[in-house]
Amino acid sequence: MTTPLLLTTPAEMSAWSRERLKAGKSIGFVPTMGALHAGHKSLLDRARKENDMVVASIFVNPTQFGPGEDFERYPRSFEADEHLCAGIPVDVLFHPAPKDMYAADARTFVEVGSLQDVLCGMSRPGHFRGVATVVIKLFALVRPDRAYFGRKDAQQVRILEVMTRDLNLGVQIVPCEIVREADGLAMSSRNRFLAPLERKQAQCLYQALQHCIKRVAAGETAAMKLSGEMAELIDKAAPNAEIDYVAIVDLDTLTDVAKVSGACLAALAVKIGATRLIDNARL
Amino acid sequence: MTTPLLLTTPAEMSAWSRERLKAGKSIGFVPTMGALHAGHKSLLDRARKENDMVVASIFVNPTQFGPGEDFERYPRSFEADEHLCAGIPVDVLFHPAPKDMYAADARTFVEVGSLQDVLCGMSRPGHFRGVATVVIKLFALVRPDRAYFGRKDAQQVRILEVMTRDLNLGVQIVPCEIVREADGLAMSSRNRFLAPLERKQAQCLYQALQHCIKRVAAGETAAMKLSGEMAELIDKAAPNAEIDYVAIVDLDTLTDVAKVSGACLAALAVKIGATRLIDNARL
Repeated sequence: MTTPLLLTTPAEMSAWSRERLKAGKSIGFVPTMGALHAGHKSLLDRARKENDMVVASIFVNPTQFGPGEDFERYPRSFEADEHLCAGIPVDVLFHPAPKDMYAADARTFVEVGSLQDVLCGMSRPGHFRGVATVVIKLFALVRPDRAYFGRKDAQQVRILEVMTRDLNLGVQIVPCEIVREADGLAMSSRNRFLAPLERKQAQCLYQALQHCIKRVAAGETAAMKLSGEMAELIDKAAPNAEIDYVAIVDLDTLTDVAKVSGACLAALAVKIGATRLIDNARL
Repeated sequence: MTTPLLLTTPAEMSAWSRERLKAGKSIGFVPTMGALHAGHKSLLDRARKENDMVVASIFVNPTQFGPGEDFERYPRSFEADEHLCAGIPVDVLFHPAPKDMYAADARTFVEVGSLQDVLCGMSRPGHFRGVATVVIKLFALVRPDRAYFGRKDAQQVRILEVMTRDLNLGVQIVPCEIVREADGLAMSSRNRFLAPLERKQAQCLYQALQHCIKRVAAGETAAMKLSGEMAELIDKAAPNAEIDYVAIVDLDTLTDVAKVSGACLAALAVKIGATRLIDNARL
């Protein structure tokens, strides 16, 4: 256990990474909103293996939450997070305050056209603009060689891949496999909001994806049919759940496909009680 | 005279700047569209004085030209530019091809809200989005400590200052004074388009600004009156000129002011024949 160096201002973070770069050290970066779980741990472990230095950031980024979303109630557990990081060990924990990350009159945004308006972007307008903008800020401060993201946020990963390529950021985006609970539920900081019955019902996202994978393996290719069956399965398992989307999309463009062929993604967003969950699987 | 090292791909540029950063060298950067003149030379001279290494880029950036604008006919004079750079001397000349700077499906853009829609942004929609995006790309590749821009492009300077701050780019934007011809005409690559009579009429931009400065010194503060007089002076001196705007704006927000007080900018854009010229003065 080695408690990571805690940096709380952009200036400190930038000075630290500049020195490491001068020293020829490679930097692996895991940006998080805290409330760390086994999914984050898998990203940190991989960053530890592949780089000289590991930086994790904990920043609940206000600009990626819309009005009425859960910015205020988003879980915060700094001490437990710090402890988890010490166990990796992480070299630097960057934990800035919103006022130090955004000037009162901040007005610059990064837009990743078309990719940001589909799937989660439909019900969360502005969300991916906020994500892309904070990630470019964090990349500028941390100067990573590699940055690690979970595939649960498949749309986020795709947007950041395109942004990094389009803006020549020189950071390797490393997508990592989804880590799941024993019953298949994808790890998420928001899982802790689920009441016991909701927690049980939440299995249905994984079950629907598994159903889809089996049906594709058995030869079904019609996307409408597959997504219809997934929606039906969710409705049956969690009658009060509110489906945001059930979609089968092209892995590169994230646009709906009619038939499963080539690299596709089955993607779900479902509200169980007050908690919005997402999951996906490659087909 | 030392011929600069010529780099033509983003990968070469990025590798070069990474090595210099490792070696602890400071980098001064002058991004240009080529067709270099005495204004550019003043930026390069200053970069030479203030940094260990100097990088100039020559890239006529297609995304900052609108349909019907002068992308195709924008002057290109690579050999003369290289010669000017050798005289500074510049260490690296970065001269990429558009296809190497933009993927065919590039779709990421940087937007600097509100600042990009006024003044030149009104008649050139998308222009500053293109500028902001290419500059962030160039900054990512060149990794400069300082970047030098002429104050003739006052709106561009302000937008890049805000972008650099908002995105934590860690580059010092160094605005440099306008360099002028003997008769006051601000140096511009586009001046070479002016026919002899147009070239003579083009003096009126500077004359209008000088008039404005004198009137303010004499106590006039009403922006409408001052801009009216400037427009009248231009109309008289160049009856066929087409005024795009004559404005008096706040230096920080670039929005129109009613009265000159505090830091203001008088800014002009005038089309003389087929050539659009801009100029400005601080009040």
